[in-house]
Amino acid sequence: MYRTHTCGELRIENVGDEITLSGWVQKIRNLGGMTFIDLRDRYGITQLAFDENANPQMTAKAREVGREYVIQVKGNVIERHNKNKNLPTGDIEINCNDITILSKSDIPPFTIEEDTDGGDELRMKYRYLDLRRAPLQRQIALRHKVAQEVRKYLNQQDFFEIETPVLIKSTPEGARDFVVPSRMNQGQFYALPQSPQVFKQLLMVSGYDRYYQIVKCFRDEDLRADRQPEFTQIDCEMSFAEQDDVLSTFESMTKAIFKNVLDVDLKTPFHRMPYSEAMAKYGNDKPDLRFGMEIHELSKLVKGHDFKVFDSAEYIGGICAQGLADYSRKDIDKLTKWVQRPQIGAKGLVYVKYNEDGSFKSSVDKFYDETQLKTWAEEFNAKPGDLILILAGDKPITLHGLSELRLEMGNRLGLRDKNTFVPLWVVDFPLVEWDEESKRYHAMHHPFTAPKPEDAGLLNEDPGKVRANAYDLVINGVEIGGGSVRIHDQQMQQKMFEALGFTKAEAENQFGFLMNAFKYGAPPHAGIAFGFDRLVSLIAQLDSIRDVIAFPKNNNGRDVMIDSPSGVAEDQLAELGLKLNLNKKDTE
Amino acid sequence: MYRTHTCGELRIENVGDEITLSGWVQKIRNLGGMTFIDLRDRYGITQLAFDENANPQMTAKAREVGREYVIQVKGNVIERHNKNKNLPTGDIEINCNDITILSKSDIPPFTIEEDTDGGDELRMKYRYLDLRRAPLQRQIALRHKVAQEVRKYLNQQDFFEIETPVLIKSTPEGARDFVVPSRMNQGQFYALPQSPQVFKQLLMVSGYDRYYQIVKCFRDEDLRADRQPEFTQIDCEMSFAEQDDVLSTFESMTKAIFKNVLDVDLKTPFHRMPYSEAMAKYGNDKPDLRFGMEIHELSKLVKGHDFKVFDSAEYIGGICAQGLADYSRKDIDKLTKWVQRPQIGAKGLVYVKYNEDGSFKSSVDKFYDETQLKTWAEEFNAKPGDLILILAGDKPITLHGLSELRLEMGNRLGLRDKNTFVPLWVVDFPLVEWDEESKRYHAMHHPFTAPKPEDAGLLNEDPGKVRANAYDLVINGVEIGGGSVRIHDQQMQQKMFEALGFTKAEAENQFGFLMNAFKYGAPPHAGIAFGFDRLVSLIAQLDSIRDVIAFPKNNNGRDVMIDSPSGVAEDQLAELGLKLNLNKKDTE
Repeated sequence: MYRTHTCGELRIENVGDEITLSGWVQKIRNLGGMTFIDLRDRYGITQLAFDENANPQMTAKAREVGREYVIQVKGNVIERHNKNKNLPTGDIEINCNDITILSKSDIPPFTIEEDTDGGDELRMKYRYLDLRRAPLQRQIALRHKVAQEVRKYLNQQDFFEIETPVLIKSTPEGARDFVVPSRMNQGQFYALPQSPQVFKQLLMVSGYDRYYQIVKCFRDEDLRADRQPEFTQIDCEMSFAEQDDVLSTFESMTKAIFKNVLDVDLKTPFHRMPYSEAMAKYGNDKPDLRFGMEIHELSKLVKGHDFKVFDSAEYIGGICAQGLADYSRKDIDKLTKWVQRPQIGAKGLVYVKYNEDGSFKSSVDKFYDETQLKTWAEEFNAKPGDLILILAGDKPITLHGLSELRLEMGNRLGLRDKNTFVPLWVVDFPLVEWDEESKRYHAMHHPFTAPKPEDAGLLNEDPGKVRANAYDLVINGVEIGGGSVRIHDQQMQQKMFEALGFTKAEAENQFGFLMNAFKYGAPPHAGIAFGFDRLVSLIAQLDSIRDVIAFPKNNNGRDVMIDSPSGVAEDQLAELGLKLNLNKKDTE
Repeated sequence: MYRTHTCGELRIENVGDEITLSGWVQKIRNLGGMTFIDLRDRYGITQLAFDENANPQMTAKAREVGREYVIQVKGNVIERHNKNKNLPTGDIEINCNDITILSKSDIPPFTIEEDTDGGDELRMKYRYLDLRRAPLQRQIALRHKVAQEVRKYLNQQDFFEIETPVLIKSTPEGARDFVVPSRMNQGQFYALPQSPQVFKQLLMVSGYDRYYQIVKCFRDEDLRADRQPEFTQIDCEMSFAEQDDVLSTFESMTKAIFKNVLDVDLKTPFHRMPYSEAMAKYGNDKPDLRFGMEIHELSKLVKGHDFKVFDSAEYIGGICAQGLADYSRKDIDKLTKWVQRPQIGAKGLVYVKYNEDGSFKSSVDKFYDETQLKTWAEEFNAKPGDLILILAGDKPITLHGLSELRLEMGNRLGLRDKNTFVPLWVVDFPLVEWDEESKRYHAMHHPFTAPKPEDAGLLNEDPGKVRANAYDLVINGVEIGGGSVRIHDQQMQQKMFEALGFTKAEAENQFGFLMNAFKYGAPPHAGIAFGFDRLVSLIAQLDSIRDVIAFPKNNNGRDVMIDSPSGVAEDQLAELGLKLNLNKKDTE
């Protein structure tokens, strides 16, 4: 037997027990005739003591071991002289009478500590060592815990966990599908699912009523920061459900997770905000509601005063940063440069300082007098000491800029505390959006999303105006989940395909089996999918999903630890009916 | 709101309640002025009653609906005159006052009943309709339940559920890997995992101590009956664990599943049998122990009597089928043909009838007298009325034949009751087996399996003799799971690779990252993987795994419902740096 206890288990009550422990050497200290080893496993750290006088041979052996050696010791539990209050096992140590080296270790390429000296690249290459570090251990444990809470809640709510296939069908529009060549059906390909969307809808047609799955999904797209080619979804669908049923079911799930994992109470029902309001007040569809600092449109207030920048702008809007009227000329200049970066693309930044003495100072004093500036301040309900920041230009660009600026000022004012969680449902998304490039409408969510019944009449005449029964769950400005009520009526689905410019043949080719299924009695249904990686990283208060995935890929989609992807033998390709046809332009 | 209750919920206590139900029309009956509809959902069936006299318009509408229509009704719960004791809701019916057709249905291509008139092909094509049938609904629910029991048990035992990657590395020997071309790394490929073996071992190196995952695995091999290109494993690994730790942990898990899902008590500890004994007594490594009928080797007893068939045979063995001495000449002839089929390949069948009167009658009476036949009967502990069946020839072929014959006779004698479950650990598998084709040893389990310490010395001189610390869980002749203690020592691993004929470069190329990981303190570890599909189908008392998978593929690896795999556009291939190179010989 390798151990009688784990390294996190022994307490003062165990004093006198004969025990066996196994684990990794975290630290070794020699102190007079004594040698102390901190022995580590997943469960904790226990101090081992070796007494040179009592057992010189064994102590010599203990002194041979290095960091990250795996050892087994036998001994008895004794009370510690210098108790360590920071350690659950800190009241005791092991008076060792035997030591066995189970496995030696080279010197690790970086320190296995709470904070490490290893760079990103090195830690990715030696991911198995990085995973030994306490922060990673906590995050992987947290991920496990969140998954179990999700299942516990959904099981209680009569959801069935049902596996859907990973080898599915490649569709002509599936440019972002990973494909898998078939050996048994040469020249044909499976695709890996971007989501189990169609299968979960089929399960509703099959009468499973409530489905969920914590499932890997795949997207072969250029990886922006914090995307992974494979990621995990909590995928759910409900029959005979309306939007309210989905929202209340899943805000209860979210509440349960936060309560049971973090002991944080989220108040239900969550706030609900139409997409249009989110865009107007926060400049994006996933507002961070931990703080206000809402965007106000100023167009009416500021136009017609010979200030060309404003007069010629499609949209003028601003925010009010409380207590920052003392920003210096230099601070403002830096902020101006910040909004002019290509990621934001603002032309410039107009500021209005509402000084503590009640006076105003702005970058547009030439065009507006104090009385006018005061009406602006009133629009924001600003107080002396506040700083108003204004952008003008194209509406989408300007709103995006204001959104980024708001988040930046929120950071500067310390309004985005990672321990505070403010959830929000964004609802009433547009059903479709116009794509300039292809000159047609695209489904904003996907082509199965139902229009709001009161807007359905507009579907043919003005699709862009139609709101969808679609919803996103946003926490602290992070989109955690999204879903919609689905179309379950063949005619409505046909109309939707028409609005999206699909020919009958295209619709049939891509979604024929779903449309066929709908001929045999499809129940009304609705669903949602959560980004599981993102949910866990939010709960872990991390910025990146990579740190909650055991074996992530880098920004080029490579696993540098196992060196994948990699070449395959020519005869393996031949068996698949394929050969390489490298495009020089792409590889150069 | 679509419903106040499900179709399985209402009872006599609900009489008088105003309710709303939604579901599928299972059956319609007109009886005098009344129309009755059986309304179905996942939870059950409720009878709806429509009274023509009370509400002619509504009843007319009810008469319009067909089977599998989705409807919503409102009404009040009343007591039934003709109660149906077979239905949990059989005491009540709904006196309907409103009906809405939510979704129409064409006439389904086969009946949606406990037993259906649809053939295999048709039901695969319309899988979403087959999935509506009660047996499939029970099996999918059972699969859900088993998954949750597995997780419940392993969570209690401190196992962490950790996701490992699906896009991994293709290895030169991975002929059975599905590969996935990378667009971002043209000319390179990921592979889909045949199992997360290496990753779970890395997680042990990383100190996660106890890992599990219910995970999809992939194998691009010719599909024999009851194999799927994607299948699901319960994949587990434990650190600081010996074989006994794994066996006791997972027989407890198995016991918990059978108890909580089937209310069947399995006695622990499970019986353990060395591989050599299983082969000798049952002719295969997954014996069905629901019955005895052990194989006895007869070589010594029967040789040297001028019967050439026996004298020239490498191996002679037989079984004793109790009470079948009255088999007719015709019965024996048919059985002889049965063992001569190519799947079994026996040359012939020798029988010995131990007649009720104590006399013997055999097909080899020319060579053996009654006294000699009696010694055979004694070998089997046969009684008057029993039938002894004997095969002779090459040892492996003959043992295989006897194994098949034993199972067949077990079936005929009704000894293989599907409600009886007899678990067994088969242990001490050979570490390696000789492959005639490649003229080298192959790992029987995989190259990371540890030899039994007492046999390790033989690894270089006589690898075929080395027994492994490997184990299979067998229930009723079905291999449910298998695993091994792993090598955690670099030197031993190196020796193993040598025994398997790997060059250093080959070993480095395929397993380099694991070998590197072992340099930094690998704990002793061991693991097991269960075939989840097979486990569920065993519990469901089904012969095929296909019936416990929501969306299975057929024997050609095709999903005929979604018509996958399928062709992809040339430009999509070009983006991947590939072009078709169809091998005519293969496709003709």
